Amino acid sequence: MKSEIINLYPDRTDVTLTTYLWEKSDFIDGKARPAILICPGGGYFSCSDTEGAPVALRFAAMGYQAFVLRYSNYTKNGGGFPDLSHKIAPQPETAHPAPVREIGMAMLRIRQNAEAWMVDAERIAVCGFSAGGHNAAMYATNWHTDLVAGYLGVDAKLIRPAAAILGYPLTDYVFMQTATAGNDMDRAFFDSSNIAFLGTDTPDMEQLTAVSPARLVSDHTPPMFIWTTSSDELVPTMHSLLLAQALSTHKIPYTLHVFERGKHGLSTGTQSSAVAMTDLSPEVEDWMNMADKWLRKRFTLNLPAMNPYEAMMAQQRAETGADK
Amino acid sequence: MKSEIINLYPDRTDVTLTTYLWEKSDFIDGKARPAILICPGGGYFSCSDTEGAPVALRFAAMGYQAFVLRYSNYTKNGGGFPDLSHKIAPQPETAHPAPVREIGMAMLRIRQNAEAWMVDAERIAVCGFSAGGHNAAMYATNWHTDLVAGYLGVDAKLIRPAAAILGYPLTDYVFMQTATAGNDMDRAFFDSSNIAFLGTDTPDMEQLTAVSPARLVSDHTPPMFIWTTSSDELVPTMHSLLLAQALSTHKIPYTLHVFERGKHGLSTGTQSSAVAMTDLSPEVEDWMNMADKWLRKRFTLNLPAMNPYEAMMAQQRAETGADK
Repeated sequence: MKSEIINLYPDRTDVTLTTYLWEKSDFIDGKARPAILICPGGGYFSCSDTEGAPVALRFAAMGYQAFVLRYSNYTKNGGGFPDLSHKIAPQPETAHPAPVREIGMAMLRIRQNAEAWMVDAERIAVCGFSAGGHNAAMYATNWHTDLVAGYLGVDAKLIRPAAAILGYPLTDYVFMQTATAGNDMDRAFFDSSNIAFLGTDTPDMEQLTAVSPARLVSDHTPPMFIWTTSSDELVPTMHSLLLAQALSTHKIPYTLHVFERGKHGLSTGTQSSAVAMTDLSPEVEDWMNMADKWLRKRFTLNLPAMNPYEAMMAQQRAETGADK
Repeated sequence: MKSEIINLYPDRTDVTLTTYLWEKSDFIDGKARPAILICPGGGYFSCSDTEGAPVALRFAAMGYQAFVLRYSNYTKNGGGFPDLSHKIAPQPETAHPAPVREIGMAMLRIRQNAEAWMVDAERIAVCGFSAGGHNAAMYATNWHTDLVAGYLGVDAKLIRPAAAILGYPLTDYVFMQTATAGNDMDRAFFDSSNIAFLGTDTPDMEQLTAVSPARLVSDHTPPMFIWTTSSDELVPTMHSLLLAQALSTHKIPYTLHVFERGKHGLSTGTQSSAVAMTDLSPEVEDWMNMADKWLRKRFTLNLPAMNPYEAMMAQQRAETGADK
């Protein structure tokens, strides 16, 4: 396993791509492997480690190359949240559209290194949780547009995501404005989050729509695996349902798993990502096995029918007529 | 993830410990984690990569520190098997008891680095497959004796294994002498394997018994998780059944899963370890999830009841009397 941290901008250390790479082996050929690019959550205030390495290692264990992208966020990976007791100041360099463009930069970086990193660049899934799920969904619905491919000045097909895996994502900012209207604490949190992400706590309808993946699904949107919990109090399940509706309307293949119980931000639901006992969920933890099975349909490794010994034995049987 | 290859002998490069280590994170405290030490199989002729990284990454994804030990073997990790068409010459430096002692050396090395590597040295499991399963079982039954602790000159409790996880292991060389008597091809293979491992193709009963973990179980043997397939033609299921009998007799906690179908050497049974399509087994692949659940009973990570935010909210509720 080769794990290293790469700065996406030459002059910044807060936006990084961490690699979790299978290396060449004499026994397992140096085959190109599909890859998963993971965006941790953190309300665009930070990128949580709980949704980084624990998730990357599980995808790596499935046989894929894995990457964790720490995209632009308000605290510049200072961790946690800024002081939300008073209004925070806008910070344009880490606000939208930087985070979604950084996914494009990461996709491009992976393609440029595809041979050295043994990545099948045609099969890279984006994955994200909470705000990171929003960022991944934004990418899945905007990768081919001026917002990303146009801005980066590259042929869009070079940065096409092959699939998206989203855990308890935000997908609809228009809906969120209404949903948080009656709850002062959520409202305060999302006002700050809006300043962190959109640069204003009074975004207009056009701004809200432009960052609502559930309203931006098109024929260019890849297949999606979505999971959440119906008891999530911070990001209501409705976000996942609205995205699923849009995928259904556009006939994009998708899977949706809404588990009944579980708070927001459970990540793997196991002790590998848990900060406390309250982060363990035997119900939710099945999602990574479900995602494993879902991915295998499209991310099958290219394996020969038989290993060299079996092939030799089969040929011997054929030559001696033992098969007849 | 910190992955590096460490030579266990200063003057040899064929015996190595490869680390798969979780690193400190601001979000997930730098807690000591239980560890799994993995011995790949290969008939004591080599150490197969198929039972190295794929297994280590899955254990790492469970939240544990993982290590792959490439112990002494006949080809010195040249890969595969020597030419078995004629009798191979004994090679004392890689033969028994070097392999089992090297597990002890690896355990000691991990304990010496426990703080830097964030390992809970009281909770290290040995794991192995096929011949590596034999080596791990040898260690589990001999760690406290002159063969290992005495030879290394250390207090045995410093190298005590907390559990053993064995995939399709060899456990009884006495039984094997009989079992392979009627099959020329198996006989030729095991004659060579005996030369590689024991230095002779005519071991006597005392030698055979001394390398038969199924005959060496004692109160010092740790709990075991054993799995195999009833259709394994190379290492018959009987090896696992005989070991289970011994554990049962000595009242050592154990789990045994004999899957019905599956050839020898399936490792994870998934594409992460498969060399060819014939190495995939939807039936067998469940074993790592089963091992995950089994390990959690004894390898639980030390987590606080609540995370800092939840603890603060709970205290506020208590102070304002909201809980009353």
